[in-house]
Amino acid sequence: MSAETKVLAGITMSLDGYVTGPNDRPGAGLGDNGERLHYWVFGGPWTYDSPRGEPAAVDQAYLDDAFTSAGAWIVGRTMHDLVDGWGDDPGFGVPVFVVTHRAHEPVVKGDTTFEFVTGGIADALARARTAAGGKNVIVMGGADVLRQYLDAGLVDELTLTIAPVLLGAGKRLFDGLARTDLAFERFAVVESPFATHLRFRVRG
Amino acid sequence: MSAETKVLAGITMSLDGYVTGPNDRPGAGLGDNGERLHYWVFGGPWTYDSPRGEPAAVDQAYLDDAFTSAGAWIVGRTMHDLVDGWGDDPGFGVPVFVVTHRAHEPVVKGDTTFEFVTGGIADALARARTAAGGKNVIVMGGADVLRQYLDAGLVDELTLTIAPVLLGAGKRLFDGLARTDLAFERFAVVESPFATHLRFRVRG
Repeated sequence: MSAETKVLAGITMSLDGYVTGPNDRPGAGLGDNGERLHYWVFGGPWTYDSPRGEPAAVDQAYLDDAFTSAGAWIVGRTMHDLVDGWGDDPGFGVPVFVVTHRAHEPVVKGDTTFEFVTGGIADALARARTAAGGKNVIVMGGADVLRQYLDAGLVDELTLTIAPVLLGAGKRLFDGLARTDLAFERFAVVESPFATHLRFRVRG
Repeated sequence: MSAETKVLAGITMSLDGYVTGPNDRPGAGLGDNGERLHYWVFGGPWTYDSPRGEPAAVDQAYLDDAFTSAGAWIVGRTMHDLVDGWGDDPGFGVPVFVVTHRAHEPVVKGDTTFEFVTGGIADALARARTAAGGKNVIVMGGADVLRQYLDAGLVDELTLTIAPVLLGAGKRLFDGLARTDLAFERFAVVESPFATHLRFRVRG
């Protein structure tokens, strides 16, 4: 039996619904005070200017599962640029498709190829599915691209990582979502020391 | 050793951060489509005009714990009025303090006395503490009153019950919260068939 590609999405959200703080910008991709969203990624407090630690075991396992299952990734151009394309050695090991309005030649960095797709989210997904070869496609964000995939009913599983913080301002994941009929079936809760991963199957 | 009163608060929130749908009104206290927030309260789908079922065992246990621990409740006048004071037999068994701008004589219904407090949230809490006699005080909402207590740093534990639905509009719990420095320490996750109760200690 051959594997079947699932489209996964995951993003971290504050208790008040923000996926970035205000003023997200290069060098501060999660916005002002937004580092607190990703304490689970680095095993505790960090800042844009300080060294970063390793994830807790439970979070590392969650990340390892995602990376192992992924045959391709999709990301919005804004997010790609905010993190400077994950630097010189992104380490995805599989193709990353960047949804953008501005055409760009593919960029190869180490074992990662970035392909810039101007045909919209469905085209990016079609190309990612082909590249994934039966493994999963993971939509990593940002908020705008993830919302487009949810609105189109193209997401099979959504992991909302709830960070126990308030940001008060920034980008909200669900603002502007056109449909409210999506059904979310929780299939797992992962309790990290720094957040709670709520994992849902999404029914369109 | 005498018990020490804790101030608990609990409210149900959609994935997109709403604690009511739009148009909350008498007879439809959770607003349009807001019944979906409280599937966990009634053991599955219900509507404002249909019969309601019983909670799942895990939710009944959560509710029983709250009612057993409570020596007094606090509610905003808007919420009180939207649910018509819980009808003829509210069944709280302990005093309920209603935060309001409009003075009103106490109302006794069965084993429940409603006291209307015009002195603000701190006065309501002081009176509730006295009435609770060492048991807990529970702030049940609505959003505006709960937000005031959070802003004042008066909440010891907050249970955010995450309903796996999108509402798209309505009242947001955290809109207008003045402070973003509150620390939330998760101490329990309760997985209901219909929602996920995230329980936090709150540090001011």
